[in-house]
Amino acid sequence: MTDLHRAVPHMLIVGAGAIGSYYGSKLHRAGARVSFLCRSGGDMLRETGITIDSLHEERFHFHPQRVLMAGEPCPEPVDYIVLTTKVLPGISGVDIIRPYLGEQTVIVLIQNGIDIEVPYRQAYPEHEIISVLAFVCVSRLSPGKILHQDYGKLALGNYPEGKTPYLEALVELLRLGGVTCEVTDRVQEARWRKLVWNASFNTLSVLGGGVDTAQLLADEESCQLVRQVMEEVCLVAAAEGHRLVPSIVDEQIEHTRVMTPYKTSMLLDYENRRPMEVEVIAGNPMRKARLHGLSVPRLEMIYRLLRLQDAQRRRQRG
Amino acid sequence: MTDLHRAVPHMLIVGAGAIGSYYGSKLHRAGARVSFLCRSGGDMLRETGITIDSLHEERFHFHPQRVLMAGEPCPEPVDYIVLTTKVLPGISGVDIIRPYLGEQTVIVLIQNGIDIEVPYRQAYPEHEIISVLAFVCVSRLSPGKILHQDYGKLALGNYPEGKTPYLEALVELLRLGGVTCEVTDRVQEARWRKLVWNASFNTLSVLGGGVDTAQLLADEESCQLVRQVMEEVCLVAAAEGHRLVPSIVDEQIEHTRVMTPYKTSMLLDYENRRPMEVEVIAGNPMRKARLHGLSVPRLEMIYRLLRLQDAQRRRQRG
Repeated sequence: MTDLHRAVPHMLIVGAGAIGSYYGSKLHRAGARVSFLCRSGGDMLRETGITIDSLHEERFHFHPQRVLMAGEPCPEPVDYIVLTTKVLPGISGVDIIRPYLGEQTVIVLIQNGIDIEVPYRQAYPEHEIISVLAFVCVSRLSPGKILHQDYGKLALGNYPEGKTPYLEALVELLRLGGVTCEVTDRVQEARWRKLVWNASFNTLSVLGGGVDTAQLLADEESCQLVRQVMEEVCLVAAAEGHRLVPSIVDEQIEHTRVMTPYKTSMLLDYENRRPMEVEVIAGNPMRKARLHGLSVPRLEMIYRLLRLQDAQRRRQRG
Repeated sequence: MTDLHRAVPHMLIVGAGAIGSYYGSKLHRAGARVSFLCRSGGDMLRETGITIDSLHEERFHFHPQRVLMAGEPCPEPVDYIVLTTKVLPGISGVDIIRPYLGEQTVIVLIQNGIDIEVPYRQAYPEHEIISVLAFVCVSRLSPGKILHQDYGKLALGNYPEGKTPYLEALVELLRLGGVTCEVTDRVQEARWRKLVWNASFNTLSVLGGGVDTAQLLADEESCQLVRQVMEEVCLVAAAEGHRLVPSIVDEQIEHTRVMTPYKTSMLLDYENRRPMEVEVIAGNPMRKARLHGLSVPRLEMIYRLLRLQDAQRRRQRG
């Protein structure tokens, strides 16, 4: 254990969904004190704890150190505050974490999308930010009941770049808990690499009417579309200074082709009538393209269609 | 009445859906003998006839001259055979009409899309083809029960171009029945004009998650998308030799903006889990663009996404 924070660090995880619960369980296993901050279902979590069932790992059950409702004060300092919720307009992680930030609290973002760190950097310029990408298939079956289906690797780095001792300490903990970690000093490039997949497979699985990865790739026309969207994302990444290797498109397509057919997280959100991460997955890269004067007609169209879909779902939810 | 055919012409309408029933009723009103060829529900039509309820016109009820099931011989010659079914892959209007074609039978197509006449011209090079576009909001509530909501104009011309006496005779009948007709000797250009609307509003209403015309135009991003798709269609039309006036895009958008919010026919097909006219609305213009080496990324993406959606619906129907 590092002694940068307390000997046994206290992690406050924002969101007791699939991602928060799964990685929370790993940190707990590593010996950290793991608390949760949630919007609902707190009593349930307090009473029955969290169970992770997995197709590949042993079943794991644990009780969080504390379960707080949003805004409820935390009597002990937080070493790492870990955001694992979806990034949606109108839900401000920045405001949610304010009561829990001590001087040394590190902000950890395990979330998808581009530029998600910007509001935190602006609001808390003195706080260290660790930006994390999760490569995992995991879903919440009910409050406190998580199903881990596959994978689990994290890619981590400091925002906007570099590696600090706090990052190394977090990685040490995660590895102790059994998580494969890829540490990078260029985490934004890693974000763009993941976006190549998310901006194509996630979005097209919804816009194609609810198709899985295999169905997207089975049709030659839509496979071509996946490729073109990926190429547009690479174009924007390059303009932002992140030159992804050109083979990334083929590699991601071929890698996905051999995966078990997979419903993307955006499609699961869509099917369950939950809001989709349209802005950070499609909107932000499209706006970057506009800033650079780049033409990305497919990415732009994806953004516009998903906006419509999301608004329509909101109307349907009433 | 013209004496080109019999004094009282015999019209065989293929498809007793909304379009076939509505214009069939007008031809009946004008004194023509109107028969129907259908795939199902023939007994019902024979017994109870067809009723047109309208928000703007008087209720109209009539009994067809004959109701034939597909393939059933027709004991009297057909002067005009009028196709009003959707144009879908795997359903060959060319084969369906073969038993009913006499030497003088005129083929009339009241259908959407581009290049729909080609298979008929190839199969029946000696037969006259009249190509028709319907501007009407009409729907079938149940077999033989039609609701006319708005509009009703037809645009007609001979394929590939020109105006023949048979066309004039048909127009005379339709006008006698109360239909506003716009006769053109450049019907293909009229098809492209209609496609400007169909390839944008119809397709995007589905891909936007089931939105009506007002919802499409209310969002500035999606309104811009409508405009760009329209511009791509105009580009292909021009390459095909049909130079549409550039103001057509603004005109169609502004005209749609003042219409009562409207669910497109493709959206109704989608919602009712019926096949959509993807190939003739999006596929054919996209293939024309490819032939001319034109880049139409939005039209291409529309085609690819609708193909996925259509295939997904087929799987869901089982």
